Amino acid sequence: MGRLIQGLVTCILIFSFSGIQASAKALKSWSNETVRHRITSFVEAVSDKHGPHYISPEQRVAVFDNDGTLWSEYPLTFQAMFSVDRLKMMAKDNPKIVNTRYLKALVEGDYAGFLKGGKRAVGDLAVKTQTGMSVREFQALGKDWVFNAIHPTKNRPYAELHYQPMIELLQYLRKHDFEIYIVSGGGATFIRTFAPEIYKIPPQNVIGSQIGMKYMYNDGQPQVLREPSLLINDDKAEKVVSIERFIGKRPIFAAGNSDGDFEMLEWTTTQDGPALGLLVHHTDVDREFAYDRGAPIAALERGLDEYKKRGWILVDMKNDWKVVYPPKNKLP
Amino acid sequence: MGRLIQGLVTCILIFSFSGIQASAKALKSWSNETVRHRITSFVEAVSDKHGPHYISPEQRVAVFDNDGTLWSEYPLTFQAMFSVDRLKMMAKDNPKIVNTRYLKALVEGDYAGFLKGGKRAVGDLAVKTQTGMSVREFQALGKDWVFNAIHPTKNRPYAELHYQPMIELLQYLRKHDFEIYIVSGGGATFIRTFAPEIYKIPPQNVIGSQIGMKYMYNDGQPQVLREPSLLINDDKAEKVVSIERFIGKRPIFAAGNSDGDFEMLEWTTTQDGPALGLLVHHTDVDREFAYDRGAPIAALERGLDEYKKRGWILVDMKNDWKVVYPPKNKLP
Repeated sequence: MGRLIQGLVTCILIFSFSGIQASAKALKSWSNETVRHRITSFVEAVSDKHGPHYISPEQRVAVFDNDGTLWSEYPLTFQAMFSVDRLKMMAKDNPKIVNTRYLKALVEGDYAGFLKGGKRAVGDLAVKTQTGMSVREFQALGKDWVFNAIHPTKNRPYAELHYQPMIELLQYLRKHDFEIYIVSGGGATFIRTFAPEIYKIPPQNVIGSQIGMKYMYNDGQPQVLREPSLLINDDKAEKVVSIERFIGKRPIFAAGNSDGDFEMLEWTTTQDGPALGLLVHHTDVDREFAYDRGAPIAALERGLDEYKKRGWILVDMKNDWKVVYPPKNKLP
Repeated sequence: MGRLIQGLVTCILIFSFSGIQASAKALKSWSNETVRHRITSFVEAVSDKHGPHYISPEQRVAVFDNDGTLWSEYPLTFQAMFSVDRLKMMAKDNPKIVNTRYLKALVEGDYAGFLKGGKRAVGDLAVKTQTGMSVREFQALGKDWVFNAIHPTKNRPYAELHYQPMIELLQYLRKHDFEIYIVSGGGATFIRTFAPEIYKIPPQNVIGSQIGMKYMYNDGQPQVLREPSLLINDDKAEKVVSIERFIGKRPIFAAGNSDGDFEMLEWTTTQDGPALGLLVHHTDVDREFAYDRGAPIAALERGLDEYKKRGWILVDMKNDWKVVYPPKNKLP
């Protein structure tokens, strides 16, 4: 009996100690104590069953933008970089596919020249490289690329170019029973190829832009095909609409990094009861990239003007994060 | 030490006994042993970690049609009956709203006359009674109606007109860690007003038709408004596409009741590995309604022709279910 009690006590001690360790380790790559404390005090308040700010787990919804919020988005969003690599490969057999000056600029690495083509050039690139195949074929190509293709300046697989501090934030929210969703301007189908592995976010929690799709029976081997049309452009106010369509609940936590996320943060933080908005500010030209006002991709302007009066956290990547990316060759 | 062991043994006995009870109670309103066994042997096989047909919980996706599969859909789908009641109420202040012969037929209870107007009449009714308000306003109206309005012939609240055997099936699948989704031709926003309470299915697991929505800042009181346009008509092949859009996984179990569910069952049951399709056949004119070939709503024709060769279960409501609806005044 004595040994049994001894064993029980040892068990309790081990469990308590892991509890303490886990709590001390939360957000360990976040160096700004004010920012860290604003996040943890919010999360603890809504999780405290006996406190005045308690929110039940099924209403504890957190939404995250992806490009520039969970991983990098330069020189182009990574889904566009995937298209660039595919376009170059397709051009080997069929050089005529590069038939506009914007695509020509692109294959020569002149990203600014490509972006001068605006939405039309981006759409043209996506249609040529990401449609006319089944969802499964597309996902196999996408996944292979994300984990194996190498970023032109960071010289690492794209899969490794996610933000270690944000992974810790996802873990911390998950530990406090938040339901975590990605709400991205990028394609949901593309993001689903890596979100489970990198972010531990399952496919059904990935919301994003959606193109036309078509079901084909195909002689007993049915497929869903990707069509050259856009159904949902999940950006700005459409992010709020997508949250209504896909979740049907109002989030209490929202994180973004550009004015494309403004309405999502606004919708989240203008309700009664506790809510938190967070903007990642790209200030780190050495470790990542630096851009905000006037940026060719993902400009942050209104967010910079209004974050204070709206009570949103502005994360200074350079000064508030101990590390940006995870160690090399180490995926979560 | 002896007492401790005795206590442990008692504990184990109690737990085992509850296990046996739970298993014996599953699907208790299902009277056809062949049907019951086909369902339970499938579910047990995919849940058996050491068996050859094991499927991990995150891939154990089950999709259910709503109208006619989880609750009744006559004399019109209940969302249309909600519109009828709203139209009558709106016509008190504004009689001119009833401005077509189809709407005139409808307010006089001539449902067949209304249905002669086809999709255009149905769309006209929906626009007049279900748009031009915020999602939250619509949901408050919808929820109040579902739980309080009385069905014209069953003389019970619509909320009570769900199928007790299907509630048991949902419980049984949930107990075996299935992820359960509704994939309905009805509006997702409407179904979300009662699915959590009646089916224990949360809003984010309700997939359905989707109309246009618009985000409005509205002086710091932002809203999402319902617009008079259709974005997704979640029927037939579009149900498969919606499954891809919203879940991003291929289901292993699908249940429906009309040819609008055919492709969803086909997509589910034409994959490698275990999968099960189930069709509810409305054969019970006394307890519910009887309809299949040539029915004005939710006809079942191709499903009847092909269910055998496709290996789908056809549930004969009259003979396979001990009860149809739950007891009066008793919601789950």
